[in-house]
Amino acid sequence: MSEPQAPGASAAFRFPIRVYWEDTDAGGVVFYANYLKFFERARTEWLRSAGFSQERMRAETGVMFVVAHTAVRYLRPARLDDLLEVTVQVRRAAAASFEIVQQAWCEGTLLAEGDIKIGCVDVASFRPRPIPSEIFEKLQ
Amino acid sequence: MSEPQAPGASAAFRFPIRVYWEDTDAGGVVFYANYLKFFERARTEWLRSAGFSQERMRAETGVMFVVAHTAVRYLRPARLDDLLEVTVQVRRAAAASFEIVQQAWCEGTLLAEGDIKIGCVDVASFRPRPIPSEIFEKLQ
Amino acid sequence: MSEPQAPGASAAFRFPIRVYWEDTDAGGVVFYANYLKFFERARTEWLRSAGFSQERMRAETGVMFVVAHTAVRYLRPARLDDLLEVTVQVRRAAAASFEIVQQAWCEGTLLAEGDIKIGCVDVASFRPRPIPSEIFEKLQ
Amino acid sequence: MSEPQAPGASAAFRFPIRVYWEDTDAGGVVFYANYLKFFERARTEWLRSAGFSQERMRAETGVMFVVAHTAVRYLRPARLDDLLEVTVQVRRAAAASFEIVQQAWCEGTLLAEGDIKIGCVDVASFRPRPIPSEIFEKLQ
Repeated sequence: MSEPQAPGASAAFRFPIRVYWEDTDAGGVVFYANYLKFFERARTEWLRSAGFSQERMRAETGVMFVVAHTAVRYLRPARLDDLLEVTVQVRRAAAASFEIVQQAWCEGTLLAEGDIKIGCVDVASFRPRPIPSEIFEKLQ
Repeated sequence: MSEPQAPGASAAFRFPIRVYWEDTDAGGVVFYANYLKFFERARTEWLRSAGFSQERMRAETGVMFVVAHTAVRYLRPARLDDLLEVTVQVRRAAAASFEIVQQAWCEGTLLAEGDIKIGCVDVASFRPRPIPSEIFEKLQ
Repeated sequence: MSEPQAPGASAAFRFPIRVYWEDTDAGGVVFYANYLKFFERARTEWLRSAGFSQERMRAETGVMFVVAHTAVRYLRPARLDDLLEVTVQVRRAAAASFEIVQQAWCEGTLLAEGDIKIGCVDVASFRPRPIPSEIFEKLQ
Repeated sequence: MSEPQAPGASAAFRFPIRVYWEDTDAGGVVFYANYLKFFERARTEWLRSAGFSQERMRAETGVMFVVAHTAVRYLRPARLDDLLEVTVQVRRAAAASFEIVQQAWCEGTLLAEGDIKIGCVDVASFRPRPIPSEIFEKLQ
């Protein structure tokens, strides 16, 4: 993964996420698998902010996005009541897949960083399909 | 809910469930919402032990079970690594719904007790449908 | 539970919650256990809006809130991308416990209604403790 | 990651995991983040099979395991009622960390493969600590 970058220094989309009891584990911190949920919420709101709904895409085009690969580095723990800022930045876009870099920050500290590869597939067969052109343009 | 009953004293179905990190919260105990997951795992295995699969029911009959009402009483906390025993007992069965009493035990102590009302609905419309007869017989 | 009431007609606290992939199940709708998470997020924000943090309460007073009983009625399914409005209203407050009524609405339709009983306990022993007075006043 | 290997061909630890409603999403398949939970359940049972409890380690030695990095490749979807076989194999062990390769199989098909790096830390400070020697031996 690339060097961490302060959220203010980059052109990434930002989304605030509050830590609730459901997100924590008996270690007193956010359960690591939940960063994948946080990253996805931010990606969804990033697409929504570009005027785009995944549910509508499924209904209208018969395709949906599936996560093909995730890599997450955990640096610092988040705790109950923390207010995180989760970023979204496109690293690369191809015909039927794209790659996103995401970070979770709390008060200027980088907590976790993820690299998420997403494929566009047919809803029924799970076979690769081209990303709808209106969305593909947003990824550039 | 009825008086708690030792698991050995009743004719209920029993299913073992281990507590993992994913189940706990920052209070150091099982997050209360997760007992609904534990109860459902036990109900599913109870149906399976009667030779019945929910996925096959969906595919073959176009109906599925939905949870209509849950009531859960939390008595004692469960902790990481605890081995729970979750019970299933039918309280009442009607044409398109049934009611189950479930308990979570750990080493002879009752931790939580739930009362779950389940409806049988059409997969597409979510309208009530009669419980398939082969399953209805099992509920008696 | 009481008759459902349109959110505009009541003095309840309201909190918006978006439905993401993580919240749904293979039935295509929000997994019923997740309404307990939605209700808790709204309760937490309701307490926060009154200037109160559970994490600080744990650290400063050695007590925490635990859920003692939940009853939830599921009326209509919520789907991916739905924007819910979750309400919080105190039904009753006692020395070491209180009871909250919560509803999840989507576009004027009541989806689920819950009745949540909460106890105040010692962090270490899980024994009942009086609700800190500054919070107790807020519950009146 | 290495070439997928049929579970019968390797010396890996194996743990069966059933897919329940809680594990699925509106795509009709297991939500990708949940493979991290499945992998962790299998790791925990692998440690337990070697006579070792994480809860006891926390209490007796003041250290705990934290996940430092996860990489997961998603190849085929799992569905409701599927019975998965999740494997655990040590790739590398160092003084204060180790790396595990894990796979999720269903009826001879590899569904997902993960590479999990785990650190041993002090419960309070989250600073690196040597892996307790009795466990370190098991990792060799």
